[in-house]
Amino acid sequence: MRIDGRERNEIRPVEMVTNYIKHPEGSVLIAMGDTKVICNATIEERVPPFMRGEGKGWITAEYSMLPRATQQRTIREAAKGKLTGRTMEIQRLIGRALRSVVDLKKLGERTIWIDCDVIQADGGTRTASITGAFVAMALALDSLVKKGSLSVLPITDYLAAISVGMDEELGSLLDLNYAEDAGANVDMNVVMTSAGNFVELQGTGEEAAFTRSELNTLLDLGEQGILELIQHQKQALKEIAFNISSSNKEGAS
Amino acid sequence: MRIDGRERNEIRPVEMVTNYIKHPEGSVLIAMGDTKVICNATIEERVPPFMRGEGKGWITAEYSMLPRATQQRTIREAAKGKLTGRTMEIQRLIGRALRSVVDLKKLGERTIWIDCDVIQADGGTRTASITGAFVAMALALDSLVKKGSLSVLPITDYLAAISVGMDEELGSLLDLNYAEDAGANVDMNVVMTSAGNFVELQGTGEEAAFTRSELNTLLDLGEQGILELIQHQKQALKEIAFNISSSNKEGAS
Amino acid sequence: MRIDGRERNEIRPVEMVTNYIKHPEGSVLIAMGDTKVICNATIEERVPPFMRGEGKGWITAEYSMLPRATQQRTIREAAKGKLTGRTMEIQRLIGRALRSVVDLKKLGERTIWIDCDVIQADGGTRTASITGAFVAMALALDSLVKKGSLSVLPITDYLAAISVGMDEELGSLLDLNYAEDAGANVDMNVVMTSAGNFVELQGTGEEAAFTRSELNTLLDLGEQGILELIQHQKQALKEIAFNISSSNKEGAS
Amino acid sequence: MRIDGRERNEIRPVEMVTNYIKHPEGSVLIAMGDTKVICNATIEERVPPFMRGEGKGWITAEYSMLPRATQQRTIREAAKGKLTGRTMEIQRLIGRALRSVVDLKKLGERTIWIDCDVIQADGGTRTASITGAFVAMALALDSLVKKGSLSVLPITDYLAAISVGMDEELGSLLDLNYAEDAGANVDMNVVMTSAGNFVELQGTGEEAAFTRSELNTLLDLGEQGILELIQHQKQALKEIAFNISSSNKEGAS
Amino acid sequence: MRIDGRERNEIRPVEMVTNYIKHPEGSVLIAMGDTKVICNATIEERVPPFMRGEGKGWITAEYSMLPRATQQRTIREAAKGKLTGRTMEIQRLIGRALRSVVDLKKLGERTIWIDCDVIQADGGTRTASITGAFVAMALALDSLVKKGSLSVLPITDYLAAISVGMDEELGSLLDLNYAEDAGANVDMNVVMTSAGNFVELQGTGEEAAFTRSELNTLLDLGEQGILELIQHQKQALKEIAFNISSSNKEGAS
Amino acid sequence: MRIDGRERNEIRPVEMVTNYIKHPEGSVLIAMGDTKVICNATIEERVPPFMRGEGKGWITAEYSMLPRATQQRTIREAAKGKLTGRTMEIQRLIGRALRSVVDLKKLGERTIWIDCDVIQADGGTRTASITGAFVAMALALDSLVKKGSLSVLPITDYLAAISVGMDEELGSLLDLNYAEDAGANVDMNVVMTSAGNFVELQGTGEEAAFTRSELNTLLDLGEQGILELIQHQKQALKEIAFNISSSNKEGAS
Repeated sequence: MRIDGRERNEIRPVEMVTNYIKHPEGSVLIAMGDTKVICNATIEERVPPFMRGEGKGWITAEYSMLPRATQQRTIREAAKGKLTGRTMEIQRLIGRALRSVVDLKKLGERTIWIDCDVIQADGGTRTASITGAFVAMALALDSLVKKGSLSVLPITDYLAAISVGMDEELGSLLDLNYAEDAGANVDMNVVMTSAGNFVELQGTGEEAAFTRSELNTLLDLGEQGILELIQHQKQALKEIAFNISSSNKEGAS
Repeated sequence: MRIDGRERNEIRPVEMVTNYIKHPEGSVLIAMGDTKVICNATIEERVPPFMRGEGKGWITAEYSMLPRATQQRTIREAAKGKLTGRTMEIQRLIGRALRSVVDLKKLGERTIWIDCDVIQADGGTRTASITGAFVAMALALDSLVKKGSLSVLPITDYLAAISVGMDEELGSLLDLNYAEDAGANVDMNVVMTSAGNFVELQGTGEEAAFTRSELNTLLDLGEQGILELIQHQKQALKEIAFNISSSNKEGAS
Repeated sequence: MRIDGRERNEIRPVEMVTNYIKHPEGSVLIAMGDTKVICNATIEERVPPFMRGEGKGWITAEYSMLPRATQQRTIREAAKGKLTGRTMEIQRLIGRALRSVVDLKKLGERTIWIDCDVIQADGGTRTASITGAFVAMALALDSLVKKGSLSVLPITDYLAAISVGMDEELGSLLDLNYAEDAGANVDMNVVMTSAGNFVELQGTGEEAAFTRSELNTLLDLGEQGILELIQHQKQALKEIAFNISSSNKEGAS
Repeated sequence: MRIDGRERNEIRPVEMVTNYIKHPEGSVLIAMGDTKVICNATIEERVPPFMRGEGKGWITAEYSMLPRATQQRTIREAAKGKLTGRTMEIQRLIGRALRSVVDLKKLGERTIWIDCDVIQADGGTRTASITGAFVAMALALDSLVKKGSLSVLPITDYLAAISVGMDEELGSLLDLNYAEDAGANVDMNVVMTSAGNFVELQGTGEEAAFTRSELNTLLDLGEQGILELIQHQKQALKEIAFNISSSNKEGAS
Repeated sequence: MRIDGRERNEIRPVEMVTNYIKHPEGSVLIAMGDTKVICNATIEERVPPFMRGEGKGWITAEYSMLPRATQQRTIREAAKGKLTGRTMEIQRLIGRALRSVVDLKKLGERTIWIDCDVIQADGGTRTASITGAFVAMALALDSLVKKGSLSVLPITDYLAAISVGMDEELGSLLDLNYAEDAGANVDMNVVMTSAGNFVELQGTGEEAAFTRSELNTLLDLGEQGILELIQHQKQALKEIAFNISSSNKEGAS
Repeated sequence: MRIDGRERNEIRPVEMVTNYIKHPEGSVLIAMGDTKVICNATIEERVPPFMRGEGKGWITAEYSMLPRATQQRTIREAAKGKLTGRTMEIQRLIGRALRSVVDLKKLGERTIWIDCDVIQADGGTRTASITGAFVAMALALDSLVKKGSLSVLPITDYLAAISVGMDEELGSLLDLNYAEDAGANVDMNVVMTSAGNFVELQGTGEEAAFTRSELNTLLDLGEQGILELIQHQKQALKEIAFNISSSNKEGAS
């Protein structure tokens, strides 16, 4: 029995509040249990210097935690004057994941800035950020469609992320909270599309190792969780949900 | 008539959600109109090195804005690697203001960290931060009382802050929103106790100047606004409200 | 009786040595008692990127102290690699204050860089910086008039600054030296024009508070001190002094 | 046919020069084709502050590339004043991987610093770093055994790493060089022990996605490559190779 | 004929104002022509961590220029957040030079901080800094003798520095001003004791080279200039001058 | 007798491996005894902003040591976030020295980046860097000649560098290794052309001083060592060696 009474393959209660902040082109508050992340998407009508003139867009992400998102207060990265390796890893992951389901040519020479700010943390903040960021990005892109800047939503598939892990006593677990994550031998983050394809797979055995068979069990759990999360995304996006399709890909027919 | 229909001496709708984040010892979401700030207070059981052994406590504050708290996305200070002068000014102001109503000797060798994170900005973020931070601090100190670490709440008076300004057409205004602030000739922040005493007064005539008489008009407005805000603080603090008193001061009798 | 024998409303001996450093367009060594600041003004024939094409000028200030300007040696900000909050606050204040008495349109697309370097500190360094910087700026602007780049000095009024404070025993004091400042309950900096209008007002009760009546006493003292300082500025500026007038304002008739 | 004539499941020529640099406790130059990395291991007789008193050791890694290790000159991170996210990711990965095969309790309160400096890059620098760092670490730990500071080599298994990827035309490939890596749709790094267990698995579909079946093909290739690399490690370590065993684990019997 | 009418072997007018700033233990304003440097010496009653317990003292120097010490305004290093290579080179040179004439054992576990702040620059700022710093240091050490902390001045010889250079037309020159320095083919800084021994010798042919014979001519000039400067130091130090002697060296008899 | 059995005027075994790294336009591994430096030269087809439009080229150098190039591990400058003064001094020296033997006009608007990375240090790393960098630079410039971008090699003379020093017991020494350098009273670096002219001369008596006569002895030793090193450079450069000549200078006839 898990610490919060869930089944091993049960995700935490999910909530997605769209248009949470008024200024961004896309904004979502995502809660997965006690993990709460504000995901804002900003449209900028240009791309970074290294991409200019290629006719393609760019998606980049930043991630941060409020100092008391965590049980112990964490020192602000702005106060330290530099980002931690953990933050850099996470924001690179979020950007890479989102780029895999957007047709950057169709997006045109625009940058989408994704800001994921964790206001309360209880495990799985990077996966919640990806799942929420997808919705914020879809809202922002839809605003471009609505005002006629884009003819079609350039999103080719849904995308969500979840953590899975291996507990010495309980075995494989889906959607670990902080206490479970701290105790797990193996920690894996899975980012997947609705077509069941992997976009990113990161498994780590800190001071441990895992077998091929354990990997397979974890991937099965992850896939199940992601399909549930994509249902939540569809509900949050309402009528926009119908415009996300692999036919949005350049050259698809 | 003001842009949002308010009277010149009318503050915006105020909301204070206590215990907003679960981890901090004190937590409040304060909304003043569309300005929303998460204020968290953390108790640390030691003081900075320069104060050790003096038997006194310390209160320090940090302030930040989410990148899309504003209409245009602001670059993260963590990404730039340094704090702006504006941020430093504000966090020094918050800390100084709160220290003026706490008996630091009674607090003992502890630090209270105040984190004010603006999630949505529409003018007056520094004054909202002070007003909200006071409540978060009171909740955190009360937690020390409740668990017996302090015998009495070491807060000697209420403290709130508000902006006032001078508009070329409308004259003096209370609690300026962003549009009003951008257009004002004179911008003043008043920090005051319930006894009507000034803790901090900062008036600026950017590319302008103001007379002694205008100053007096603005101070009258500010005092009125602050007394209203203190009423909101009392309601938010509920029964704790009764324990804030000048008799909490060391040596008071 | 004050520590150095002055009356409560008496400023320290003032000295302003113009053309102190040979390279800058305007240069003044200002001494207020033992506080000594080198104020240099530099003309740059362009404005920062965010202002280009607006036909307006800009004034910006930097402030620093030599490590042994103070009783204890202070670590260089260049060695630490970042400015302290105090420095940032002061240099923002100096720039804002000077901009309030210059017609930036008449200045044209130029930047005036003000450098205030405290070589010896004994309280009131920020107010001495403003008072001295005004003279250095006037000299630099006059050099533009003299070489025909400007037809008229674009300065609309005199500007000076002074500190006032409240001592528990002595009551209100004008122009506090370091020892007085360290012991004061209330510390206020007043920046004012010769017309008696406020450009900036910053009052702080560190771990204390002050009443409306105390505020008024302090403002009276401040106004008196500032008018004296402006007399010193006029003497330092000699014949240039006559060209500073509110009729220099764009659109004035 | 691959660009350099290899079979799809063929790794590049491997070379490991032990004792390459004379000062470090362990030193290896590893070459995998044209990728060359100097891996040095340093023993420090203490642990970081957060671990003191726990009776456990620590292993940490740093990674860097010479500016002209790459085809285009890369700006030095020391000149920029900060590490890139890519560097941080890699050095965290190397440290984490090595810690998984060392019994940190048996190591005692010591830190092993691993420095991986790429002098020539042609793809797979992070995996070559891990494979080489394992050997440098073993040499350094063996020096502790030789001088009597440790009674047994606290390494519980071999560890090596390799990249696998999916090319649109050629399908799955083992040990990608730079040109192959740049063209791959899917890029995966596998870190594995001689027991065939995963220590780390990082698969990325940049602007693409991969199926479960493709994942399995890639993992098969990776396992094969790693077992070959471990043979090379055994040859490089000579008689030390026999002292690496899972029986080195605390509590193993 | 030199640009300012001097002979080739003539130094500029020298002025040394002792006790220029009131707070430091030793303070000198040195002027060599239009080059003016404030040299302050601070005594700290401890040494840096790497020297503790060795019973020896340390001397370290910092160097800076006011932004408008130069003809064009120079950006502050504090604003840039880092020291330039030129500054680092100079402050290392000043410290090293001074340490060569102080018996660090006799100094005891104390640090002397030397601050050289150039307020006006016209060539030769690093050599003027050394010459002035020597006097400031002697005053600071004498204050330790006067209050009984040291029994004898631990200075073993005088020390001064000067620049020499080779002009294409005028040949060898002593004590170059800025215009001469900018035009010189060879630039050399000589640091020497009153005994005529070299402490530091730095000759540079930027985009040029110099012969052994030219070197000798330059060294002759330098020696002559340094002996003159040492006369000025003796006058500035008054009666302290008699206490500087090689017999102050540990073990001298 | 020297610690490694050499004569006082004997340099260490010299090795220069050209084309050591495959990507750079010029690459050399230089070994002087146990000191080993990888010197890479990169051609960039533009100059820094401050030189654009002048029709001249630029040469700049960077220097670094692997953390375990030294006996004790040195912290990475990239990890500290800033360069040490020592590194800055050395890289400025290398660049300045190389520029003195290149006709920058003939080079045209190009930058040559020199990277000197010390992989193993045993004294004399800066002089070995200069000697090796000269060869790498010549190879890179020759590549421009070979592909027709330059009609002639714009190098006007050979350039090499060596250290000399004064040992209390052994007297003057040529090419000091680390142990000798640590014990020397006087340390001097000489950079010279094949014509026997000085390009740079840096002599330091750390906590000591040296006479004119000692200087002359050291310069004689240095000249001898440099001529030997230039022979090694000629052998390493093979047929390119013949194209280095003072007649390559603009305007030479």
